[in-house]
Amino acid sequence: MYIPLRKHFEKIIPLTDEEFEYVSSFFKPKKLRKHQFLVQEGEHVQHEYYVLKGCLKAYKLDINDREHVIQFAMEDWWISDFHAYFNRAPATLYVDCIEDCLLLSLSLSNREKLCREMHKMEHFFRMKLTASFVALQQRILNSLISSTQQRYDQLIRTYPVLFQRVPKQDIASYLGVTRETLSRITPSGR
Amino acid sequence: MYIPLRKHFEKIIPLTDEEFEYVSSFFKPKKLRKHQFLVQEGEHVQHEYYVLKGCLKAYKLDINDREHVIQFAMEDWWISDFHAYFNRAPATLYVDCIEDCLLLSLSLSNREKLCREMHKMEHFFRMKLTASFVALQQRILNSLISSTQQRYDQLIRTYPVLFQRVPKQDIASYLGVTRETLSRITPSGR
Repeated sequence: MYIPLRKHFEKIIPLTDEEFEYVSSFFKPKKLRKHQFLVQEGEHVQHEYYVLKGCLKAYKLDINDREHVIQFAMEDWWISDFHAYFNRAPATLYVDCIEDCLLLSLSLSNREKLCREMHKMEHFFRMKLTASFVALQQRILNSLISSTQQRYDQLIRTYPVLFQRVPKQDIASYLGVTRETLSRITPSGR
Repeated sequence: MYIPLRKHFEKIIPLTDEEFEYVSSFFKPKKLRKHQFLVQEGEHVQHEYYVLKGCLKAYKLDINDREHVIQFAMEDWWISDFHAYFNRAPATLYVDCIEDCLLLSLSLSNREKLCREMHKMEHFFRMKLTASFVALQQRILNSLISSTQQRYDQLIRTYPVLFQRVPKQDIASYLGVTRETLSRITPSGR
């Protein structure tokens, strides 16, 4: 079960068998069915989750109960309400399962313990955060500058599999447009 | 000159005099005049910058030469074209000085060397990145959900001093609205 997690770490840091055994002992498996909530608004968020199998979305509900998707996650990605998780604050997001999911959970105190005890784990998480930070800056720039068509094209180019697994209305929400606007868009150059 | 930098680190990690002397030896001072460019599109971006004095903005120009501000920086903040810096890619942003500036530059290779040699520096940068990552997620959620008025109010509440130092058109650009839209907004509750 833990082989994908080991490969995931080893993209950035080498780990001996003993080290990986220790690291993986902090992760607990969690199974959820399609449409089940992983996180709900107002809850304490004690874990982040590495996705072994399945597909999820994190979103915020506005005052009209409209969903605004901030993040998707599939195999080999991480998901949570990160603001709530890192700040030990109540959740402002919902995270739910687009498919049946198998996840590995890591608590914040165990994440910090791993980083404190193993310099290379601190390095791993710093490198992941660097990539995420840069990706979010690019997403903001794209939302300011690029047309919906350009952002749709870029998303389909970067994550083609997302379009087979995620409902169109969630893609529209992620791009900050209505389902109707999205349905007028066809992938350009195809 | 380096006292604010030491205080900045010590908000997160303790440093002995010897450690700080070593860390600060990797930073080089840089002076720039108001309106001077720190980074220009197409350049190699070899440094990030800690702001000792002054105020800067990072922005992208669209095909109509309109500025889209992704970040401001003042005393005790960091600024660069981070996508270019971390990926050793040519700049896609401009960074220029809204006021005369005194900065401390750190190269990527020296940043990585510090993180490799000193676990606590890796910890420092991970914690800074965690806060930045969460702030960017919140900014995206706000842009999806909140009105311009709400985002303006939040910005003025969080960074009141920004409004005394940064031209209105740059604030408008950061909020993704025109100067005209912004001028119709007055801080609510004031």
